[in-house]
Amino acid sequence: MNFAFDDTTAELRARLLAFMDECVYPAERAYGEQAATSGWSPPPILEDLKAQARERGLWNLFLPGEEGAGLTNLQYAPLAEIMGRSPGIAAAATNCAAPDTGNMELLAQFGSEWQRKQYLEPLLNGEIRSAFAMTEPDVASSDATNISTSIVRDGGEYVLNGRKWFITGAMNPDCKILIVMGKTDPDAPAHRRQSMILVPRDTPGLTIKRGMTVFGYDDASHGGHAEIVFEDVRVPADHLIGEQGGGFAIAQARLGPGRIHHCMRLIGAAERAVELMCRRALSRSAFGKTIAQQGVVQDWIAESRVRIEQLRLLVLKTAWLMDTVGNRGAHTEIQAIKIATPAAVEWILDKAIQVHGAGGLSQDFPLAAAWAGVRSLRFADGPDEVHKRSLAYRELKKYMD
Amino acid sequence: MNFAFDDTTAELRARLLAFMDECVYPAERAYGEQAATSGWSPPPILEDLKAQARERGLWNLFLPGEEGAGLTNLQYAPLAEIMGRSPGIAAAATNCAAPDTGNMELLAQFGSEWQRKQYLEPLLNGEIRSAFAMTEPDVASSDATNISTSIVRDGGEYVLNGRKWFITGAMNPDCKILIVMGKTDPDAPAHRRQSMILVPRDTPGLTIKRGMTVFGYDDASHGGHAEIVFEDVRVPADHLIGEQGGGFAIAQARLGPGRIHHCMRLIGAAERAVELMCRRALSRSAFGKTIAQQGVVQDWIAESRVRIEQLRLLVLKTAWLMDTVGNRGAHTEIQAIKIATPAAVEWILDKAIQVHGAGGLSQDFPLAAAWAGVRSLRFADGPDEVHKRSLAYRELKKYMD
Amino acid sequence: MNFAFDDTTAELRARLLAFMDECVYPAERAYGEQAATSGWSPPPILEDLKAQARERGLWNLFLPGEEGAGLTNLQYAPLAEIMGRSPGIAAAATNCAAPDTGNMELLAQFGSEWQRKQYLEPLLNGEIRSAFAMTEPDVASSDATNISTSIVRDGGEYVLNGRKWFITGAMNPDCKILIVMGKTDPDAPAHRRQSMILVPRDTPGLTIKRGMTVFGYDDASHGGHAEIVFEDVRVPADHLIGEQGGGFAIAQARLGPGRIHHCMRLIGAAERAVELMCRRALSRSAFGKTIAQQGVVQDWIAESRVRIEQLRLLVLKTAWLMDTVGNRGAHTEIQAIKIATPAAVEWILDKAIQVHGAGGLSQDFPLAAAWAGVRSLRFADGPDEVHKRSLAYRELKKYMD
Amino acid sequence: MNFAFDDTTAELRARLLAFMDECVYPAERAYGEQAATSGWSPPPILEDLKAQARERGLWNLFLPGEEGAGLTNLQYAPLAEIMGRSPGIAAAATNCAAPDTGNMELLAQFGSEWQRKQYLEPLLNGEIRSAFAMTEPDVASSDATNISTSIVRDGGEYVLNGRKWFITGAMNPDCKILIVMGKTDPDAPAHRRQSMILVPRDTPGLTIKRGMTVFGYDDASHGGHAEIVFEDVRVPADHLIGEQGGGFAIAQARLGPGRIHHCMRLIGAAERAVELMCRRALSRSAFGKTIAQQGVVQDWIAESRVRIEQLRLLVLKTAWLMDTVGNRGAHTEIQAIKIATPAAVEWILDKAIQVHGAGGLSQDFPLAAAWAGVRSLRFADGPDEVHKRSLAYRELKKYMD
Repeated sequence: MNFAFDDTTAELRARLLAFMDECVYPAERAYGEQAATSGWSPPPILEDLKAQARERGLWNLFLPGEEGAGLTNLQYAPLAEIMGRSPGIAAAATNCAAPDTGNMELLAQFGSEWQRKQYLEPLLNGEIRSAFAMTEPDVASSDATNISTSIVRDGGEYVLNGRKWFITGAMNPDCKILIVMGKTDPDAPAHRRQSMILVPRDTPGLTIKRGMTVFGYDDASHGGHAEIVFEDVRVPADHLIGEQGGGFAIAQARLGPGRIHHCMRLIGAAERAVELMCRRALSRSAFGKTIAQQGVVQDWIAESRVRIEQLRLLVLKTAWLMDTVGNRGAHTEIQAIKIATPAAVEWILDKAIQVHGAGGLSQDFPLAAAWAGVRSLRFADGPDEVHKRSLAYRELKKYMD
Repeated sequence: MNFAFDDTTAELRARLLAFMDECVYPAERAYGEQAATSGWSPPPILEDLKAQARERGLWNLFLPGEEGAGLTNLQYAPLAEIMGRSPGIAAAATNCAAPDTGNMELLAQFGSEWQRKQYLEPLLNGEIRSAFAMTEPDVASSDATNISTSIVRDGGEYVLNGRKWFITGAMNPDCKILIVMGKTDPDAPAHRRQSMILVPRDTPGLTIKRGMTVFGYDDASHGGHAEIVFEDVRVPADHLIGEQGGGFAIAQARLGPGRIHHCMRLIGAAERAVELMCRRALSRSAFGKTIAQQGVVQDWIAESRVRIEQLRLLVLKTAWLMDTVGNRGAHTEIQAIKIATPAAVEWILDKAIQVHGAGGLSQDFPLAAAWAGVRSLRFADGPDEVHKRSLAYRELKKYMD
Repeated sequence: MNFAFDDTTAELRARLLAFMDECVYPAERAYGEQAATSGWSPPPILEDLKAQARERGLWNLFLPGEEGAGLTNLQYAPLAEIMGRSPGIAAAATNCAAPDTGNMELLAQFGSEWQRKQYLEPLLNGEIRSAFAMTEPDVASSDATNISTSIVRDGGEYVLNGRKWFITGAMNPDCKILIVMGKTDPDAPAHRRQSMILVPRDTPGLTIKRGMTVFGYDDASHGGHAEIVFEDVRVPADHLIGEQGGGFAIAQARLGPGRIHHCMRLIGAAERAVELMCRRALSRSAFGKTIAQQGVVQDWIAESRVRIEQLRLLVLKTAWLMDTVGNRGAHTEIQAIKIATPAAVEWILDKAIQVHGAGGLSQDFPLAAAWAGVRSLRFADGPDEVHKRSLAYRELKKYMD
Repeated sequence: MNFAFDDTTAELRARLLAFMDECVYPAERAYGEQAATSGWSPPPILEDLKAQARERGLWNLFLPGEEGAGLTNLQYAPLAEIMGRSPGIAAAATNCAAPDTGNMELLAQFGSEWQRKQYLEPLLNGEIRSAFAMTEPDVASSDATNISTSIVRDGGEYVLNGRKWFITGAMNPDCKILIVMGKTDPDAPAHRRQSMILVPRDTPGLTIKRGMTVFGYDDASHGGHAEIVFEDVRVPADHLIGEQGGGFAIAQARLGPGRIHHCMRLIGAAERAVELMCRRALSRSAFGKTIAQQGVVQDWIAESRVRIEQLRLLVLKTAWLMDTVGNRGAHTEIQAIKIATPAAVEWILDKAIQVHGAGGLSQDFPLAAAWAGVRSLRFADGPDEVHKRSLAYRELKKYMD
């Protein structure tokens, strides 16, 4: 057992930290100002940051194998944390932003040659963006077997009908391609009914209805969260990813690394929140002493530190398990980080907001927006409660005859 | 001891409930749609609702004495709860919305004859709106002695300089008058330094800089939360409310009823959230049973009910104390409801959101917006932590020699 | 609505408070010392206290109707709170201690003439004690239909076989009579299977096996918590209470007032804990200031006050509902106080213990013992979780078609 | 970074697990029965277990260096966890029980040659037991500068006067030696006032007054928690450990490993609680399904697993830090595990108790006793609140100029 970073990780951390200090943090203000007028497109400054990141060799770090930086999950995880300190910007600047990361992994692993040529390549180059369309407004999507968008084979094409929402990134005009999960085989066994298929965003019959808000935020600079209607949307049959009926299995494979990325970015956000909380507490006074001298605030700071240290170790161990025993062997831990991280980071952000007074709720600090993001992760990939039930079942099973 | 409503309250509750069913709930959709295009002004449908409320004798219910409905705090509180079920609309429609309610009480109690004629009268008639400018960006405003906006006597005028933010309602063009708290006597004892003064919103030197957001909400349909700069803003000396140096005392007097209104409205919001949570849980299924059959969801529903019942009684008792022994005698309880209510209602709204899945975060349900509102009440009138310290001090004092 | 005590209650409160000050608190030390050597019997000083209480007209206050003090639930509740400040002593001294109170109510309401003569009379006189035998070690007793002790009619007798545990008070040699719940009609509908029957503690076949501990406490001075085996225990048929098959209905009727008594006594214990917490915090210093000056401790004190005020009102309202609309109409509230009170009081006691340092865990303060008592109330009459499910079901039912 | 055990650890874990299965668990019942009659001495069966442990090479595993097993903290920590599964027995059987472990480390590190010969040797051989006397009833001992027992040099002797309590193990007649912390230099700088000194338990003037209870437990089989009075207790000057005035520094050095041992044992206790909780939940039914099928219980099980996984990693990392950068470099983590572990394990035990119904409170399951032990660790070595303040201060310091 050894808790030190290996050399590759240490070197990349240093390089990424320099990029944060030299490029990302200084760009935050301009990014925010541009975002106010750039509609559903990302602020123009993002392209500069992408160029700088690429030049510094900080590009596609998330992707294992030859097409990416070739890092293990355990090596990438500490880098994702650093990106999470400036969540809207750093991940996008290094081409490591969701949902594209999951989509690229999926195409790298399951895509046909032309699918990889046509879509993976420009995604890896940061030329286009993508979306992943799973959640539906009319059913409890936490149970994937509820998904009702139909994908019907008709000659050399598939025809899609249905409604999706909270499709992150799909409002962005740069988003050129959607990976859609739907039902191809309604009579097959429950976990063989779904398939995934590529649908270009400009396909006739596909209508982007509106952007959904998350606690008032439209998240426009990250492409929003679209509601999308599919009415007789036709795509050639070769747009199907993997085999028909394989959607559920692909979705499962997609989850592990994404959870680690999410959780590490949240930990980065939490670290930033602690820093802001400390700085604010030291700089404000009320009733004759600084906020930092208030026992209750000290309690929050200590609790935050204690929780972060535990979370980080659990996520890192999960990454290590995925590297050494694979997704299946890391099942309990993958669920555990999904349950523990958003809850703890939400708590930390809440306290950081409280220390900032009313300002903490507003656009003048990144805290309220980060809070809304982490709150939404108590749903993403299924609500906490579903994961807890599943985890408990595995625990109980140890003692069943 | 007796826990039944008196006849006046029972009759008004019935009348108000009918108004909710017949006018308010049916107008919610149109109100939301109009709000999307009405900028910082209230949606036009509000005027219809105001007319209907007035006709039904549901007008200025909050105001004791001859100028208002003449109700006690204990009689009004259950009505405020009902209004809280549709928070943006019902209170405004009945001319019972903050911050005007507090401002009207203040003018009724401390205003000079011409101040009442000039400002209280049109406020009571629902012809204009008003704002209350206390919080400042540069200091911890929870400690009122920190307030630094200067109000300097210069001949027959007062001159204001300073910066305020989170001035609710002040973005609304119908807002004609601000009550501003500032420092007139910097060398007086700490609680005799501040005064309150009336400042017409169109006074030269007063600049509305921007609307602050609360999480991602600008709350435009309620007049937003303005940042306002005062640069050599001059008003005649007769605009001062009460006596010079009396600002702190007036602020204290303003607090009690306002807290009761806020807390009862939150309880109304919580009741609505429980209803929505139950309806949603009964209507959705996952993994072979309805959400309502999940033990964890049942636990949330039960906890919500248990917490609401306790909160309501405490707020009602506080109202009764204010009616019988006054603000000072109800000090502990006024702080207690300020501490307990936002925290509990925030918890309930969080659970209601969770039951709604991603939709709960969005514009399609009133839950996320209500959540942001209640979260901001953990600051309004000072953060919970300040009130807890003060309450603890009174408790400890019982045992000091 | 009115939150003031009526005259009867006010007068009795004053009288009881005087009894606490003049007799109970001064006897606490002697009571504790005697308890160390009095085995399963109560400390001898209890008889003195009983005499004094009776003389002062503080006797059987819990019992409505002519046989008791004739108070309503709402009148008695504030008295139970006062008794709870010295829980082991005051209730016993005034003949208002569980489980005898519930048993006396039960006999007063359902007992035959000779049962009342034989058992209710000496109980009312404080000459004997009694126990209530329901919980069984081998089944989840929260579901009363699980109860498996058999009560079989055999000629003019009933024959009992089974095992009970946690039978509070039954180790006390003064305990002369047990009310036993068991199954008489195994083939009847689920809620018509049980009956209650009187079993003298010295009946052959009844064996007191041992005292169960509760977090290390044997609660010997209150008669302990016995495990009891029934092997062919025979009692005459006239020992059955009410009708055969009526056990479940009687048990339900018994619950309401008992819950109110328990909850109010817990609130009294919480008030005492707050007092002890304040006194200790004021008297100890560490790191240059008193414990009372620590922000976190102030937070605990404030939270304790806020929670107690809410709880008390809810219990009082429940008492009022029982007086005005009966057990059934107060069903939600009776469950709500069962859920809310032990949880909140446990939290308060935990904080009071923490403020006392290691001493708080020990025999030198009443806090740890009180904690163990309140913790056990999260089970008594069924665990919280069962009550929450039931309460949630009633809430959900409002919205079912 | 690597999360696998090294070979030494893996081998010792296997050996220790076999010892648990073959010797410890089978002895638990007899241990409990003997404890009921063995007074303040350990149950006789312990000597058998010690012999078996020693024979299996499972002896003094805690002690680094030549005198012990020579393991690092990181190697020993997983073994401590396993011992914690049967806390009263396994640690004592392997001569790895507190407070002797800390005392042996202290003597190994700071003891003079004769001190080591006289006391360390028989302790290492398991022939005698020892105690550590620091906490005092009259001051807040969390602030070590409060400690008031005086140790005054008088010729060739030191004379002790004062009162200590909660001196764990000191009721045990096998306890032959106490390490006493007291004030030798009242006028020195705050952290140079205390010294530690060896005091044989049979020294004239030393009176064992009584055993303190923790909740209702006297913990007699582990030597109880003594209150001890020192009245002119004289020991030769060579009984002083290290240098005069060095008590505080020694106390600090003693803390690190002890915290790791405590925390890992608690994690073992938590693992056992989860096992018991699962087994019980699977074996009991109420209202038509097993307890294990209740959503709320599943939630507890999942939460328990998630919390344990995080805690264990944090404690292991702390052990690694102590091995690699020393006590000082691991300061934050040492405090973090002290804060996080008792709180989380207490929560888990509470839920395991709740699943067991009333039985969980009693002597029939190890849960309530384990709960009392972990609750007392929220004080031991200073209450959580003191550690949180200190940790927060270090966090804030990063941002001070």
